[in-house]
Amino acid sequence: MPEQPFRPAINKLKPYLPGKTPQEPGVIKLASNENPLGPSPMALEETKNRLKHISIYPDQFSIELRQKLAKKFGLSEKHFIVGNGSDEVMQMIAATYLSAGDEVLISKNTFSIYEFVTCLFDGAPIFVDLKDYRYDLEAFAGKISNKTKVVFLCSPNNPTGTIIKKDELERFLEKLPPNIFVVIDEAYSEYVESKDFPASLKYLDKNVIVLKSFSKIYGLAGLRVGYGIAKPEIINCLTLTKLPFNVNRLAVAGAVAALDDSEHFEKSLINNYQGKKHLYSELASFGPKLSFMETEANFIFIDVKRNADELFLELLREGVAVRPLTSFGFPEAIRVTIGTPKQIERFISALRNTLR
Amino acid sequence: MPEQPFRPAINKLKPYLPGKTPQEPGVIKLASNENPLGPSPMALEETKNRLKHISIYPDQFSIELRQKLAKKFGLSEKHFIVGNGSDEVMQMIAATYLSAGDEVLISKNTFSIYEFVTCLFDGAPIFVDLKDYRYDLEAFAGKISNKTKVVFLCSPNNPTGTIIKKDELERFLEKLPPNIFVVIDEAYSEYVESKDFPASLKYLDKNVIVLKSFSKIYGLAGLRVGYGIAKPEIINCLTLTKLPFNVNRLAVAGAVAALDDSEHFEKSLINNYQGKKHLYSELASFGPKLSFMETEANFIFIDVKRNADELFLELLREGVAVRPLTSFGFPEAIRVTIGTPKQIERFISALRNTLR
Repeated sequence: MPEQPFRPAINKLKPYLPGKTPQEPGVIKLASNENPLGPSPMALEETKNRLKHISIYPDQFSIELRQKLAKKFGLSEKHFIVGNGSDEVMQMIAATYLSAGDEVLISKNTFSIYEFVTCLFDGAPIFVDLKDYRYDLEAFAGKISNKTKVVFLCSPNNPTGTIIKKDELERFLEKLPPNIFVVIDEAYSEYVESKDFPASLKYLDKNVIVLKSFSKIYGLAGLRVGYGIAKPEIINCLTLTKLPFNVNRLAVAGAVAALDDSEHFEKSLINNYQGKKHLYSELASFGPKLSFMETEANFIFIDVKRNADELFLELLREGVAVRPLTSFGFPEAIRVTIGTPKQIERFISALRNTLR
Repeated sequence: MPEQPFRPAINKLKPYLPGKTPQEPGVIKLASNENPLGPSPMALEETKNRLKHISIYPDQFSIELRQKLAKKFGLSEKHFIVGNGSDEVMQMIAATYLSAGDEVLISKNTFSIYEFVTCLFDGAPIFVDLKDYRYDLEAFAGKISNKTKVVFLCSPNNPTGTIIKKDELERFLEKLPPNIFVVIDEAYSEYVESKDFPASLKYLDKNVIVLKSFSKIYGLAGLRVGYGIAKPEIINCLTLTKLPFNVNRLAVAGAVAALDDSEHFEKSLINNYQGKKHLYSELASFGPKLSFMETEANFIFIDVKRNADELFLELLREGVAVRPLTSFGFPEAIRVTIGTPKQIERFISALRNTLR
């Protein structure tokens, strides 16, 4: 056998298992937490207007979007970096801070890209258990060592839908040694109802990087655009690691327009609130066949008490694609996007036919 | 001073200096080698049709485009990887093959991203001089050591417009030790007229990765899409290093449609051929005030025999944005995209007013 010519890290990179996008006509997709109402109509209109410019390279620093975000959050554009999805910002964070062997604290049962970017830059992922399906920041604090460089938090957590509470976050940040960078992935924060959800932008004086996405409530997953918010010294470093034209023209234009589309935003929120109540009452009627978590996001975690991969296939035959959570470490749970009322009815009816 | 918390590599990453996209009305942009005829109309039409799907994540493996490319080149889709621009594929190559200290051979006076991705993954760039403005593969061969992992070649070379000839490439590849990966960046290959240009896909049995772009002749720079062609073992490794949804939906759809748009392709080629003859004759009339290189690409390299950054500003005041080549190591040269006949006239007239 010849020596493997690739880096040792390559052996640690697990392929991402995406939600299934059904090709079969009539199958509904509740597998990737996309907006069931579709894209913001204002974003659609604006991307259409900008199509004629697609032969021109995008702006290297997505300045149009950063200025818009600065206004929205009452910060300066120097506090923002835009990525080809917020996962690209995660990659920039790893590229900026991780030397070989640096430790990165990551929860078990969470979004897999934190581990991916850590391994890509030769960091050592240190896993922390969830506690009652929630991030356990006391346990995180207990795993901090003098090798710890980055901490990834996901709130609301994908796939359990639970949040890190304000007091938990504050206690954790207070104890944090300097030169550790805390990433708070808030891809789903717009859906949160809980009064205990922290206003994470209050902590930007610390080494905190907040990540947000246009793939969820704004309905622009196909365009690829997310962003990071942090103090300018951090943003400057991240920027050095990014490829020059990382965000495409239409993504920037669409995201700017989506931020103005309060009607689509409100409709999406209301659909989600009503949808989750609807789901709670339907799921409760299954009795002991399943249990579910109340959610602060646009999806719901359901413990189906049987093999999730098999159930996934059965639900697919019933015309509904959900996400089996085996790859998240929950082999008997599924994650279901909160769809439109019709989609929820179809899902519940499919579930009745399969969870007999 | 506190210890710098970021990786040492960050200090080596030089910010990319893009071509200026003029905001001033009436200023023409000949600075980034975009297609002066704009995007493929068929790509425009198709991206417009697909806008309604932008709330859905893209296909993780850009399979639609890879199948189309496979057909075009008579290969299998397993030979292709699609990137958010071909520069992202360069980054995947570095991520796949470079361990700290591995040497990467890079020409001086070429596209800067080869050095960028090398430094991002802690590789050691080893620079090789151009010879008469051309890649010098004999000199490359002379710099190969047992630490060499990757070789980046750019043909036609950005910014000199010169190609590596078939016999030069073959001699180089014959001598190449195993486990060295040769990247041939052919972003401009569609414009090549020379009969000496190698059919690089002939060498895919070796560790050769050919890169191509939709940003140039297809006119889709703003959408971000490029690709790599290599044997499936290589493609599989590169794929492991990429973020799941790296290429946006509209880029894939636009690229697929552009490949069918032979009319736009032919028009773009003819414009370029006629434009370069036009430029050659106009530039010759400047006599000893300048010299230029005949080009195999959609841009022309001009030695203006004075400070290029100053000339850039003067030309901008005349309404023409070109690329000063200081950052490429040519402080007295500019690179000018071959525009439409009108744009060429405006450039020549601006040049007459400035190179007096």
